[in-house]
Amino acid sequence: MTIVRKPENESLLPFHDTSVRVRYAETDQMGVVYHANYLIWMEIGRVELMRSLGVEYKEMERHDDCHIVVVDVHCRYLRSARYDEVLRIRTIISESRSRSLKFSYEIWRDADGQLLATGETTHVICGKDGRPKHLPERHRHLFSAAAPAHKSA
Amino acid sequence: MTIVRKPENESLLPFHDTSVRVRYAETDQMGVVYHANYLIWMEIGRVELMRSLGVEYKEMERHDDCHIVVVDVHCRYLRSARYDEVLRIRTIISESRSRSLKFSYEIWRDADGQLLATGETTHVICGKDGRPKHLPERHRHLFSAAAPAHKSA
Amino acid sequence: MTIVRKPENESLLPFHDTSVRVRYAETDQMGVVYHANYLIWMEIGRVELMRSLGVEYKEMERHDDCHIVVVDVHCRYLRSARYDEVLRIRTIISESRSRSLKFSYEIWRDADGQLLATGETTHVICGKDGRPKHLPERHRHLFSAAAPAHKSA
Amino acid sequence: MTIVRKPENESLLPFHDTSVRVRYAETDQMGVVYHANYLIWMEIGRVELMRSLGVEYKEMERHDDCHIVVVDVHCRYLRSARYDEVLRIRTIISESRSRSLKFSYEIWRDADGQLLATGETTHVICGKDGRPKHLPERHRHLFSAAAPAHKSA
Repeated sequence: MTIVRKPENESLLPFHDTSVRVRYAETDQMGVVYHANYLIWMEIGRVELMRSLGVEYKEMERHDDCHIVVVDVHCRYLRSARYDEVLRIRTIISESRSRSLKFSYEIWRDADGQLLATGETTHVICGKDGRPKHLPERHRHLFSAAAPAHKSA
Repeated sequence: MTIVRKPENESLLPFHDTSVRVRYAETDQMGVVYHANYLIWMEIGRVELMRSLGVEYKEMERHDDCHIVVVDVHCRYLRSARYDEVLRIRTIISESRSRSLKFSYEIWRDADGQLLATGETTHVICGKDGRPKHLPERHRHLFSAAAPAHKSA
Repeated sequence: MTIVRKPENESLLPFHDTSVRVRYAETDQMGVVYHANYLIWMEIGRVELMRSLGVEYKEMERHDDCHIVVVDVHCRYLRSARYDEVLRIRTIISESRSRSLKFSYEIWRDADGQLLATGETTHVICGKDGRPKHLPERHRHLFSAAAPAHKSA
Repeated sequence: MTIVRKPENESLLPFHDTSVRVRYAETDQMGVVYHANYLIWMEIGRVELMRSLGVEYKEMERHDDCHIVVVDVHCRYLRSARYDEVLRIRTIISESRSRSLKFSYEIWRDADGQLLATGETTHVICGKDGRPKHLPERHRHLFSAAAPAHKSA
């Protein structure tokens, strides 16, 4: 399942795109990207999605003591990413709750528009001490506004 | 769901345990292990499981041109692993087919016996050219014998 | 020692600048970037320097069977890079020979213009088989033209 | 230069050996280990050397707020490490001072006894706040006793 786009109004699109170029260090001896690196790219995707909403994740950690902790990762690998390719990471907030968040991802190869991988991550909001807590109101509103309406609560 | 053990006969246990010690490089600024590293540990788990069955994965790649390519990863994070902890990676072959394999994992903290994460990976067998192929007969038998009977075909 | 700039003519400047943003995965539990990651950034610096000269490193590997193998790395860490910071990697070819190359690097923090690290790498040109070989003429010329004259031979 | 051994009395040997097995994730598309990973192995070497002296590095960080911060790394790559090889990391404290430490490393391939790399790292002792500080007396004594006499002060 690919992430649905609302074609009629670009500014309402719920996804955010960011790019990475594959690093040599990310390849393995099979000649393709080692699979664990896709999780790092998904993280870049969600941080840049948050930034596009006006949220600097590092400030969430530093000033609000809010850490978006990964509790579940699922990734499907369709085609291999290769060294030096430019990839487009498409990210949406698929669910926004007061104490948890879900993101969905698509990783596309820029050169030929092929979909390389899809993924989902689930997160709980925790303090530095590891205890669950609520998102600050400001972030809550921003994330819920960006998420599909029926999935937020 | 934790991996079931057959208590009556240790030699029939379908799982294999291997240990890793958490490296400083694997931690992040939250003070715990960065989540993508669990996928690397799961890979160590399946390679060591194969070795315990008499299969050197590097020889599979080199001599049989058989690559066990990851097509799906799912990981649930229950508790954080921390620097210098010794972890036990428990791996089973959960499904063995002629052209695909599934593994399941549990990652335990040695010091207090806490379960930190569970995961599953799905793989297809490919040549260096990326095309699917069959497992060599020898490996097929070894893997099927180690997998739960009803899940092999 | 910082990399000398020829101030009178920007187009003659021997260095190339590229940017990276620090990833969460690159931090460690001290709250700063783990030191091995600077080597990955230096690699990005030299690949982008080559690209600016018209050389795609991946094509060097694929079509010319020329691998720029690292034989020596030296890095001095002056100040810590931190999560989400934008860094400028300044790279020069400090020596260009027919079978070896040297690069020098400076890693700057964009926000405050602080120098975070300096480094040098030495490389030999090898085929996929690991045997030393000569750079193709075209690359040789491009790299020598970009290197300080007296250091090329 | 290889690390000198005192042959007459094993218990006085100033070096410590520890082993790692090369992970798939550590390889790159050249079919060998990506060079930045040697720095991670050197870190394992010094942590295990310290442990052999009775010092748990994680306790130094946690209880003494003493971080052994890398300020300089030098590594020479002689031969490539490859997937699944067992490596022996030989580490010595080459210099021990009240506020700084130097370590030297040799990385050997177990199977054929070939020397793959040598390296040195320099460190300053810092608090979590990044400010230099003195090693605790206990560690100071242990490290100096393990270092060549004339290099400690």
